Amino acid sequence: MSTLPEPGGTGTGRGPRRPSSAGRPRSGAADQAIVAAALRLLAERGPARVTIESVADCSGVAKTTIYRRFRNRRELLRHALHSVAAIPEPAADLPIVERVIVLLDQFRLGIEEVVGLRVVATLLLEADDPEFADTFRAQVLAPRLELLLRVFQEGVAAGELRAEVDYRRVVDLLVGSYFARHAIDGGVERDWPRSALDLVLPTILRAAPTAG
Amino acid sequence: MSTLPEPGGTGTGRGPRRPSSAGRPRSGAADQAIVAAALRLLAERGPARVTIESVADCSGVAKTTIYRRFRNRRELLRHALHSVAAIPEPAADLPIVERVIVLLDQFRLGIEEVVGLRVVATLLLEADDPEFADTFRAQVLAPRLELLLRVFQEGVAAGELRAEVDYRRVVDLLVGSYFARHAIDGGVERDWPRSALDLVLPTILRAAPTAG
Repeated sequence: MSTLPEPGGTGTGRGPRRPSSAGRPRSGAADQAIVAAALRLLAERGPARVTIESVADCSGVAKTTIYRRFRNRRELLRHALHSVAAIPEPAADLPIVERVIVLLDQFRLGIEEVVGLRVVATLLLEADDPEFADTFRAQVLAPRLELLLRVFQEGVAAGELRAEVDYRRVVDLLVGSYFARHAIDGGVERDWPRSALDLVLPTILRAAPTAG
Repeated sequence: MSTLPEPGGTGTGRGPRRPSSAGRPRSGAADQAIVAAALRLLAERGPARVTIESVADCSGVAKTTIYRRFRNRRELLRHALHSVAAIPEPAADLPIVERVIVLLDQFRLGIEEVVGLRVVATLLLEADDPEFADTFRAQVLAPRLELLLRVFQEGVAAGELRAEVDYRRVVDLLVGSYFARHAIDGGVERDWPRSALDLVLPTILRAAPTAG
């Protein structure tokens, strides 16, 4: 189905260079090309195929340059995952329900346009690569789910959501319905975030105060 | 983590034989050994590793015997999947909620003790093996989800559940929360079916009729 896009195209070792400072040398363009190549390879071929060699081939950055930055493929992979961990938070003045929708949409986008379903599949097969599963969970998945949980907690604090709900399980159902739809049908409808959330709203919304 | 269990042990071609009847010859013991080996290989190594050779090695049934029954690995795999498609239905006199719990427990059991998470991962990567994904969805996954849907529909017909709910999406959330918990934590708690269902009950249960 998908094929790897063309390499960034700066050519082997022709990226801009800055004089090495103390510690690991950083060059903006080369670093970006390395991260982009690592993420492409991760999404389309899985973590085992992210090697110094494949990243060099795919990015056009020389192996020696990559080795100057990263001791090994594990370190490179961690660095690449770290770069996708940042999540723009939904505006705090949005209603709680809309903030959850924004985060679920970002969750979908993160899977479909950045890390890929291959990575999700890898998590289900953690026995194959427990170190990758741990790193991915800690650096990418957990922070996103924490953000969702935090929004729910703010809803509780604001009196809009019930306190006596296990929101970690609510997150399981919401996020899980994305995986289920893919497993069942091979794709997820555009209105997925809202239609999934609608099914738990009666459980989590505090009833409007009765008049009088 | 897991290793393949010992082969069934009837030894090459030593299984009981019945005289061939018209069409494909069937021998109960050999057939069982072939199916068991195919399912073990499927669960532990994935669909691509279920070959006539590997099934012969693992079952102790001679390749020629297997080829007499199945033209190729695809046919063998379809036969093996067909054998796990039957699902014991929960007793019709159980309350709806309990029937859903029984089916979710069987869903978990089917994944954990029969087909394996590797197969679920394969569904997320359907581009790798679209034919297997189609066969698995049609023969194994869809019938189970249909049964869940049917129980919900019976609940609607009995006046216990709301009619205006998209129960296909409810199934997504319930079943999906199993996948999500595995992806997030690598395991699912024993009380998963009930705690997942609890989160959608306020949405699907018809309110008790108000007195008077």
